[in-house]
Amino acid sequence: MKFNLAFIGFGTVGQGLTEILINKKDLLKNEHHFDYSIVVVSDIQKGYEYNEKGLDPQILLNLVKEHKNLENYHDGIKGWDSLKTINESNANVIIELSFTDVKTGEPATTHVKTALQNGKHVITSNKGPSALFHQELMKLAKAHNVFYKIEGTVMSGTPVINTALQSLAGCSINRIKGILNGTTNYILTNMELGKPYEEVLQKAQELGYAEADPTGDVEGWDALAKVIILANVVMGGSLKTKDAEREGITKITLQDIEQAKAEGARWKLIGEISRQDGKLKAKVAPQKLPLSDPLANIMGATNAITFETDLMGPITVIGAGAGRIETGFSILTDLLDINRSLNK
Amino acid sequence: MKFNLAFIGFGTVGQGLTEILINKKDLLKNEHHFDYSIVVVSDIQKGYEYNEKGLDPQILLNLVKEHKNLENYHDGIKGWDSLKTINESNANVIIELSFTDVKTGEPATTHVKTALQNGKHVITSNKGPSALFHQELMKLAKAHNVFYKIEGTVMSGTPVINTALQSLAGCSINRIKGILNGTTNYILTNMELGKPYEEVLQKAQELGYAEADPTGDVEGWDALAKVIILANVVMGGSLKTKDAEREGITKITLQDIEQAKAEGARWKLIGEISRQDGKLKAKVAPQKLPLSDPLANIMGATNAITFETDLMGPITVIGAGAGRIETGFSILTDLLDINRSLNK
Repeated sequence: MKFNLAFIGFGTVGQGLTEILINKKDLLKNEHHFDYSIVVVSDIQKGYEYNEKGLDPQILLNLVKEHKNLENYHDGIKGWDSLKTINESNANVIIELSFTDVKTGEPATTHVKTALQNGKHVITSNKGPSALFHQELMKLAKAHNVFYKIEGTVMSGTPVINTALQSLAGCSINRIKGILNGTTNYILTNMELGKPYEEVLQKAQELGYAEADPTGDVEGWDALAKVIILANVVMGGSLKTKDAEREGITKITLQDIEQAKAEGARWKLIGEISRQDGKLKAKVAPQKLPLSDPLANIMGATNAITFETDLMGPITVIGAGAGRIETGFSILTDLLDINRSLNK
Repeated sequence: MKFNLAFIGFGTVGQGLTEILINKKDLLKNEHHFDYSIVVVSDIQKGYEYNEKGLDPQILLNLVKEHKNLENYHDGIKGWDSLKTINESNANVIIELSFTDVKTGEPATTHVKTALQNGKHVITSNKGPSALFHQELMKLAKAHNVFYKIEGTVMSGTPVINTALQSLAGCSINRIKGILNGTTNYILTNMELGKPYEEVLQKAQELGYAEADPTGDVEGWDALAKVIILANVVMGGSLKTKDAEREGITKITLQDIEQAKAEGARWKLIGEISRQDGKLKAKVAPQKLPLSDPLANIMGATNAITFETDLMGPITVIGAGAGRIETGFSILTDLLDINRSLNK
C-alpha cells in the first residue's frame, strides 16, 4: 500500500514527523518498504493545502518556519477544513494532531470517528479520544477493518503501548507503575539539589518543560490521562477520569525530599493501575520509592514504566516522555506497524 | 492459519512453553486468534512422538515429569529423529530447542536451515545459529517466504530483539549497552555485600544460576554470543566472535567493588556495540558505571539493555534474562508475532 497521509493539525509534532519523513525517506522505502506522500495538511491556524498527488514536505516546513500560511504553497487545493479533508481527500491514513481539549476530547474525537467511519486508518498522539472513548473507537476501527493506533499518547515514541499489546501479548499485566510526566520528575529531581519548588518550576517554565499554567502537570492531570489510557487500552478496563484518585506534587517539601534521602528512598509522582479482585484501581500520587526500585532512579525529564506480568515478572521501559522529534517518531512507529501488518 | 508445532528438543524451555500453551489456550484463541496443536516432539534423550492430528500436551509433560520416554504416549508414530520430523511431519512451525554447542552452532543450525528450506517457520532461543550465521539464515527465510524468529536468544522473553527491529524501526541504533548475563550480575551484586567471589559463585551454583563449570558465564562467553547477535541482527553487522574483545568478571576484587562504591559508581559486566566511522566495535568487559546510568542500578539476576538511537535518544528495557517460563514465553511472543503478520 502507498500511504497517502493527511495531517490534521501541523504543530510541533506534525512538523517533527515531517522532518523525520524527509530525512528517512530512502531508508523507510528500502529497509521497511514504506512509501508515502503527504497529500493534505489541514491546520486551523496555519492553513489548508491539498494535492492528491502529494505535497512537497520541505516546502510545507519552510512555509511554517517563515510564519506563512500554508495556502502560499504554489499549487494545490486550498481551504478544505478538517472534516472535508477527512471525508473527501484521497488520504488513506489520518494523522490526528489537532489542538485538543483533553477533558472533552474534541475536536480530535470527532476527527477520529469520522476517519474510521470512512475506512481510513487513524494515528494520534492526542490523549483525549482514548482517555475518554477508547473501546468505542476500537470497535469502530474493527467494524471498518482499519487501524486506530495511539503509541504517542503515553511516553511519546518510547515503545509502551505496542510493547504491552504486542510484545507482552499472552502475559497478564496485573499492575502498571510509571513515571508518566517529565515536568514533575524534572522538578522533583532538581528539588533534590536543595532548590525550592517555586524556583525549580520557574526554571522548568523557562526551559519550556512546564507551561505558564502548570496545573496540568503539577496537579497530576497529564499523568492521570495516561493512567486512564493504560488502564483501558492495556488492562482492558473502562475507567473514567473520575474513577481514579489524583494527587500532584505541590505538597512535597524540601524536607520530605531530605527525609526520603536519609531513608535511602526518593519521592516520585507515580501513576499506578492494579487489578484487585478482578477490578482495576487507578491512581496518580507521590510515592516514596526505595532506591532498589528501577523507577526511583529515573531522573530529570525522563519517563519510565513497569509492567508487572504473570509470565515475565516485571518489565521496565525507560525513555523520553515528550519532545517534537520523539512524539513525531511515535506516529512513524505506528505507521510502520500498520505497514508491516498490511504487507504480509 | 492453524499452527502445527514441532518441538525439536523438549528440555526446560520446551516444557515451560508447553505449560504456557496449556494454561493460556483459551486466551490465546479468543484474544489473539492463535490456534495451535503440538503435533510432534523430537528429543534425542526424551524420545520421539508424532501425531499429525496433535498430541495432548499435558500427557507429554506428565511423561517427562515421571522420567518416562515420550514413546510411552498411547498412540502416534514413534522414532522420527529431528531431520525426519522437520522434513516429513505436517508441522508448519519448527520450535528449535535442541541442546546445541554455541561454538559450532550444531545441531541447531542444521535444523534451522532444513526447516527454512522446507518452507517452515522457525523460532529458536538457541544462540548458536544467529551468533554464527544470522544473515545467511535470514536470506534463506526470505527466499522461502517464512519467518525466522529469535527473541529468546537475548534476555529470554523480555522484548529486546523485536523492540529493536519493530518498535524502533526507523531509528538508527548507534550504540547498544547491556547487562546480558544474569549469573555474573548476581555475583557482582552479592560481592557488594562483602562476600568474596568464590563464596558467591558457589551459592549461585547451588541456586542453579551458575553451571558446574562457570566459565561460559564468568569469562563473558555467554554475554559475547548475545553481543554478536545484537550486532548482526539489530545493527546490521557481520561480526564473528573473534572480532570482539572479551573479559569476564574473575579479576574484580572486593576492593575494586568497595572503591567504586566510594566513588558513587558500580562495576557491571557490560556487553557493548558501537558504530565508529561506519564500523561496528563490539566488546564484553567490566565497566565502572556512575549510579546515574540506568544499567548501574540493575541488581541480582536481572538483565537490561540500552539502545542509543538518533531519534529517541536512549531507550532502556529491563527484565528477566533467563528462566524456564520466561524463555518459554520468548517462543510464544514470536509465535504471536508470526500469527499477527499472517492474519492481516
